[in-house]
Amino acid sequence: MSKLSFEFPDGNQKEFDAGVSVEDIAKSISVSLAKKAVAGKVDGELVDVFAPLQKGGKIEIITSESEEGLQVLRQSAAQLLETVAKKQFHDIKIGEISADEDGFYVDTDKAERQVSADELDELANQMKRIIKNDASVKRVYLSKDEALKEVDGDPYQAKIISEIDSDNILFYDIAGVLTLAQGVVAPSLKNIKHFKLLSVAGAYWEGKSSNPMLQRIYGTAFYKEAELEADLKARQEAKERDHRVIGNNLDLFFVDPKVGAGLPYWMPNGATIRRTIERYITDKELANGYQHVYTPVLANLDLYKQSGHWDHYREDMFPPMEMDDDEMLELRPMNCPSHIQIYKHHIRSYRELPLRIAELGMMHRYEKSGALSGLQRVREMTLNDGHTFVAPDQIQDEFKKILKLMMDVYDDFDIDNYTFRLSYRDPKNTEKYFDDDEMWNKAQSMLKGAMDELGLDYVEAEGEAAFYGPKLDVQTKTALGNEETLSTIQLDFMLPERFDLHYVGEDGKEHRPVMIHRGIVSTMERFTAYLIEMYKGAFPTWLAPKQVEIIPVSDEKYGDYARKLNEKLSAIKIRSHVDDRSEKMGYLIRDAQTHKVPYTIVVGENEVKNNTVSVRKYGEDNSRDMSIDEFVMEILKDISSYSRDANKEKESVDKVR
Amino acid sequence: MSKLSFEFPDGNQKEFDAGVSVEDIAKSISVSLAKKAVAGKVDGELVDVFAPLQKGGKIEIITSESEEGLQVLRQSAAQLLETVAKKQFHDIKIGEISADEDGFYVDTDKAERQVSADELDELANQMKRIIKNDASVKRVYLSKDEALKEVDGDPYQAKIISEIDSDNILFYDIAGVLTLAQGVVAPSLKNIKHFKLLSVAGAYWEGKSSNPMLQRIYGTAFYKEAELEADLKARQEAKERDHRVIGNNLDLFFVDPKVGAGLPYWMPNGATIRRTIERYITDKELANGYQHVYTPVLANLDLYKQSGHWDHYREDMFPPMEMDDDEMLELRPMNCPSHIQIYKHHIRSYRELPLRIAELGMMHRYEKSGALSGLQRVREMTLNDGHTFVAPDQIQDEFKKILKLMMDVYDDFDIDNYTFRLSYRDPKNTEKYFDDDEMWNKAQSMLKGAMDELGLDYVEAEGEAAFYGPKLDVQTKTALGNEETLSTIQLDFMLPERFDLHYVGEDGKEHRPVMIHRGIVSTMERFTAYLIEMYKGAFPTWLAPKQVEIIPVSDEKYGDYARKLNEKLSAIKIRSHVDDRSEKMGYLIRDAQTHKVPYTIVVGENEVKNNTVSVRKYGEDNSRDMSIDEFVMEILKDISSYSRDANKEKESVDKVR
Repeated sequence: MSKLSFEFPDGNQKEFDAGVSVEDIAKSISVSLAKKAVAGKVDGELVDVFAPLQKGGKIEIITSESEEGLQVLRQSAAQLLETVAKKQFHDIKIGEISADEDGFYVDTDKAERQVSADELDELANQMKRIIKNDASVKRVYLSKDEALKEVDGDPYQAKIISEIDSDNILFYDIAGVLTLAQGVVAPSLKNIKHFKLLSVAGAYWEGKSSNPMLQRIYGTAFYKEAELEADLKARQEAKERDHRVIGNNLDLFFVDPKVGAGLPYWMPNGATIRRTIERYITDKELANGYQHVYTPVLANLDLYKQSGHWDHYREDMFPPMEMDDDEMLELRPMNCPSHIQIYKHHIRSYRELPLRIAELGMMHRYEKSGALSGLQRVREMTLNDGHTFVAPDQIQDEFKKILKLMMDVYDDFDIDNYTFRLSYRDPKNTEKYFDDDEMWNKAQSMLKGAMDELGLDYVEAEGEAAFYGPKLDVQTKTALGNEETLSTIQLDFMLPERFDLHYVGEDGKEHRPVMIHRGIVSTMERFTAYLIEMYKGAFPTWLAPKQVEIIPVSDEKYGDYARKLNEKLSAIKIRSHVDDRSEKMGYLIRDAQTHKVPYTIVVGENEVKNNTVSVRKYGEDNSRDMSIDEFVMEILKDISSYSRDANKEKESVDKVR
Repeated sequence: MSKLSFEFPDGNQKEFDAGVSVEDIAKSISVSLAKKAVAGKVDGELVDVFAPLQKGGKIEIITSESEEGLQVLRQSAAQLLETVAKKQFHDIKIGEISADEDGFYVDTDKAERQVSADELDELANQMKRIIKNDASVKRVYLSKDEALKEVDGDPYQAKIISEIDSDNILFYDIAGVLTLAQGVVAPSLKNIKHFKLLSVAGAYWEGKSSNPMLQRIYGTAFYKEAELEADLKARQEAKERDHRVIGNNLDLFFVDPKVGAGLPYWMPNGATIRRTIERYITDKELANGYQHVYTPVLANLDLYKQSGHWDHYREDMFPPMEMDDDEMLELRPMNCPSHIQIYKHHIRSYRELPLRIAELGMMHRYEKSGALSGLQRVREMTLNDGHTFVAPDQIQDEFKKILKLMMDVYDDFDIDNYTFRLSYRDPKNTEKYFDDDEMWNKAQSMLKGAMDELGLDYVEAEGEAAFYGPKLDVQTKTALGNEETLSTIQLDFMLPERFDLHYVGEDGKEHRPVMIHRGIVSTMERFTAYLIEMYKGAFPTWLAPKQVEIIPVSDEKYGDYARKLNEKLSAIKIRSHVDDRSEKMGYLIRDAQTHKVPYTIVVGENEVKNNTVSVRKYGEDNSRDMSIDEFVMEILKDISSYSRDANKEKESVDKVR
């Protein structure tokens, strides 16, 4: 029998006979370690404790204390869930089962009715029963033919088995039910005490929308009760911040896949937020030397052939429409070619540069229907888009200007948890990139120079640049902890070539400009989703759909006072409203809080007598009495300070000025 | 020989032998009348003076004094143009030739190079030569076979002849050239002294874009020189007002059919006008109780099947796009179904009515490429759209509110040449209309009642209503004299049925609302085209892309003063600019005038010394000196008065209040 050599994390080496198991190896160190082992890891790959090893390498014994230990626990829970699902539903088919840092899932398919959320408790109870009474897991190896016979009638399992490159296929036998191993399971199920089945949702088999939709059962599991509880709390928090949930509660938007997947309808409340953002960013850009345009969402397909989008980006584009005169029209996937038309409409002089073209540009991207989500991932979107055409020696200055504008805007929205990433070409593999060495070197050092001049921290990522030029990405974390690129400034040497752009220089000759693509607040859809989660629906006054709710203590007695106040506020464009429903006052006040209205005003006998208002600001516990004029001054100051805490210094912006 | 009986305009009757000509009949009255006759009219149909008549009826002798006399003159000029074109170009083919109140035209087609504008003078000279030397016109009748042989090789002429229902086909012989009669020509060409060949432009054979493009030569002709001159002056005026010409001169927009027919690109100047209109109308609507939304331009085709658009409006719609999951997506031709989605998203109560949903809604209409024109007729457009959902007894009040809003808006744009047309169903043919007699009667009388209450003049048009409800159209004349519907208020009983809309009434039961479609300023495209022509490009200050041009007498000496002033104005959002090009001052001032900038400010020694500005308003002859603050006050007042002459009373609006 041949010998295998293993190296332990501490550097020690040991030899064992081929076919040795992780359990045997653990035992060779200590019996207690062998007891604690839930899996092994050989050369980075998780292996079952009992699996006969045929290759040596670096070895680790996995216990509950590590990240991998948690994964094994969850994979065990998934395998157990599969077991009880098969016990419970004789006609069930099983797709993928998997575990990761987020929990575990089991994909199921039933002939008639799918598994529903109501059945999760019962499945969990059955899991608990097995954990308590019958927690041991037997390993059974079948040949491929035997395995296929075992899963007869389940096409998903058959497909998985047929793709395994071995004739020795591992099944787990739990409580007398055989299930195919799709990951590493612990020797015993007794540790799966702290778990929760969370939800069910549709998921395509193999992630392809052309495949059948399976029902995915989600769950999670921990070794410790406190950890499970903390996780469930975080999930609840995430659910409360989920822009789809808040969007529904505050009546901001909806998507109806029957009318169009990924095509949101903005209700009046959401539309007010969006309109406020659109006007804000347009005015900001106009004040910063941008020229706003409107360009059509449709263009001849030839335009996107010339730009290269049709060749390299086609799968994200909508199908072209055939018109008369042999014209093929295409919904644009990006606005750059449109802005190039604006540039090309005149002969440009160096005196006009930097020429800044901006637009709230509607675009269409063919996202897979499975990837669509609320306002976050959509098929129709309006981008706060801008393209600056510069002479090569203007790159650094213009880049700085864009960066300052961006930080200024972030400050107005009170966004401060962002980091910068500069992406360069790979210096060892320059052929992959647009062919102009000098331009790359110059441009990259200009970008770096600008960041240094502004004293900003950044990471440099070699080899992460696009084919056509280096870029800066601004990374933020969403309220739910996902990293997201909110803004980007991207140099482009290629499109000016492809469209043969030029300007007449001071020397009277034609020169090639560089194009800078930049988005400040990304798409209206994505940015609004981001803000909903960031503000948790409690929008600052300038963005809030309804800014003031006026509640008369008695409509009969004080309704007129309330309505006159409302008229006064509306006349100066404050979004106010009188809630004169005949409900109890406490209910009306709570309702205004639930809808996160920034100011709730109650008017009764005292207020009418003294010509005052009783104001309660959202998030404050007590109300304050003040004159109407004082209130108007306060709310106007609040609105004009945007989202910034009035007391907070404008740090990030001052920093770069 | 049989006898024919003719009745003259004065009621007299006379009999003639069959085959008598108009000339013979005129002679029977007086020789001078026969000399003046250029054609006849029998039972409303124009006939050649020499044509042998085979039927009696009401007869008129046409002389130069009538409208028909002018048409005959122009038809004669067209026939003469065809004659010289055939003399000049041996390979020419002739399509339609025609005359009307606007002039005449001849459609031509040449194998190689088409007729160009440069050749019009030469063609006109040859026409004059024939008029002078050889003005007689001979009539030649050919059989169909002979006629087809005569036009051998000209497929257009052959097609026209083959469609004539007679074997006796009239040709005119002018100066030895035979041309097919396509209308009635005068006995002599000697009256065609005052004519002009105007232009050439492409026109599809038989008006179908699938047919070859011919070259249409346009001309006009009059009996009197003064009339020709007046007409040419009006044409020049029209050309100067043409929004496409002004749009190009003022750099407002462009359309490039290669990138997309009917898909305008709004340059920064045009975009500023559009943005100003968009914000103005949105704010106006918000202040009037409308709730603005954003809804997607795409929807599942099923939506337009349900609304009926796909069945009744398909030829104006874009081709559907096939997506995954068997989804067919369609670019919307109208916004109504989208706003119905907004309505249906909640259960609605009578307390919410009238519910007013508005949007700057982008739509797509498949106009034939031949019909497209500048911003006037486009394929992608953004409509100032609104839909009010009302209880049936609210129709009259809501209709009045919309009407007042509309007149208020017109007043702000200084539009006052409009008339109202109420369209009812045909009372004799009620089956053609949506089946609810009571609703029709009530609604029509409510619309009429509202107009009467407001004391407005209107015409009533029975049988002009749409299938689904009565309507009010607001008709204006464009600067070029064409009638146009600028606004419309349209009741709709049908869509609420088709989409099963309801609201919960005070009685707790479900009721069907009525929908009111309304547009105030129509589409951004059409309205801007209308305004360009109305203002002749001299936009009032609030709409002008550039409001102030500041010209320093010397950039070196006074440039800083100019730039400081510019900053001051820009800070309060006045669109101002410093023209510091090193050109002569006179040139810069003229340039500002050419671009119709409302205020031109010159700053020199005196202004800097006294801290003043020298202001010249567009359209005024002299400049005025004033302090900077005085100027700011003046321009802010100007902007806030919209397009209204500050001294003019707000008549139209006061009228209805």
